[in-house]
Amino acid sequence: MSDFFEVALRQRACRDFSDEPVPDDDIERILEVSTHAPSAENAQPWIFVVVRDDDTRTALADLTRRVWNAGARDSALTRLEPKLAADVDGGVERGLGGAPVVIVVAADMQSGVHPRAVASSIFPAVQNLLLAAGALGYGSALTTLTAAFGDELRAIVDLPEHITPMAVIPLGRPARPLGPPRRRPVSEATHRDRYGREW
Amino acid sequence: MSDFFEVALRQRACRDFSDEPVPDDDIERILEVSTHAPSAENAQPWIFVVVRDDDTRTALADLTRRVWNAGARDSALTRLEPKLAADVDGGVERGLGGAPVVIVVAADMQSGVHPRAVASSIFPAVQNLLLAAGALGYGSALTTLTAAFGDELRAIVDLPEHITPMAVIPLGRPARPLGPPRRRPVSEATHRDRYGREW
Repeated sequence: MSDFFEVALRQRACRDFSDEPVPDDDIERILEVSTHAPSAENAQPWIFVVVRDDDTRTALADLTRRVWNAGARDSALTRLEPKLAADVDGGVERGLGGAPVVIVVAADMQSGVHPRAVASSIFPAVQNLLLAAGALGYGSALTTLTAAFGDELRAIVDLPEHITPMAVIPLGRPARPLGPPRRRPVSEATHRDRYGREW
Repeated sequence: MSDFFEVALRQRACRDFSDEPVPDDDIERILEVSTHAPSAENAQPWIFVVVRDDDTRTALADLTRRVWNAGARDSALTRLEPKLAADVDGGVERGLGGAPVVIVVAADMQSGVHPRAVASSIFPAVQNLLLAAGALGYGSALTTLTAAFGDELRAIVDLPEHITPMAVIPLGRPARPLGPPRRRPVSEATHRDRYGREW
């Protein structure tokens, strides 16, 4: 599957992975796409730590579970649809969905990127990563919960002080086919010329 | 052109547009892809204001030019390669590159999205928008310079207080073919298991 529209319109978070391995070549292809995203002044501030090592993956999964159970879970469950909530909860309990690879995406603050432009220079690359994974038949999910606990996350993958973790992405073959994403219609979010004028 | 990898690997900012019109159908298709990006808790906080109106486009271009000339230009020129600097400067002077359509992407802060998850819930959608534009043969560019002047930008497109502008994206047919993007190799940004271990 590599038609652009098919890849983009079918993207959905995967929270349950098989243990089928992910070859380095596929990861390189995914990261090549990721690094072709735009960044402010083409600073390319992205850093990727590709984690396969069991202990490190377990530490990342444990941190996620701890943050989730310490408050994020209760807060999320008040808002999420029950099916989505159960899906997220199950993925956290399995340990980042049991993914064979976890990619920590971080920003190099010494790359020259303006602090205000960090997010707009990292999340397009993250989205490219997720899309490229889907194009190759992999599942993935964008998680940012543990990035708020930057020091703990940083310690797990040895990131120095000037490298700020932004996202943690489990990656692998989905344990079962993913359903279609559910979205509101474009017209509900779109305005013509000025806010409030119907599209 | 709609092979996923071709679309993603060829993405490049366009700063000079022809005045060929962009039909509503193409904009809808682009925004359909944009709204299929992931967002925290599927909150879908994105708001799009699609600006064709001459006065509003001129106001957006004027604000960009003013911010650019008030300091951003001098600061950027110390860092950018001369060719990229001239390209950006020319685009700003032409008024958002003379694009026939300008899309303001904003975040609805009443959508339930956690303030810390706004950027990670908006820039993936922005990236989908840029990629979908490319897949349909349009040029575009991600600009965030004026988003820092939120109140002025908000006033131009009538955004209420709870809608935060995040990006301004000129869209149209490129005035001339875009060259390939220039990127550092994946291996320079990638680490294995822990930061500092060669990929």
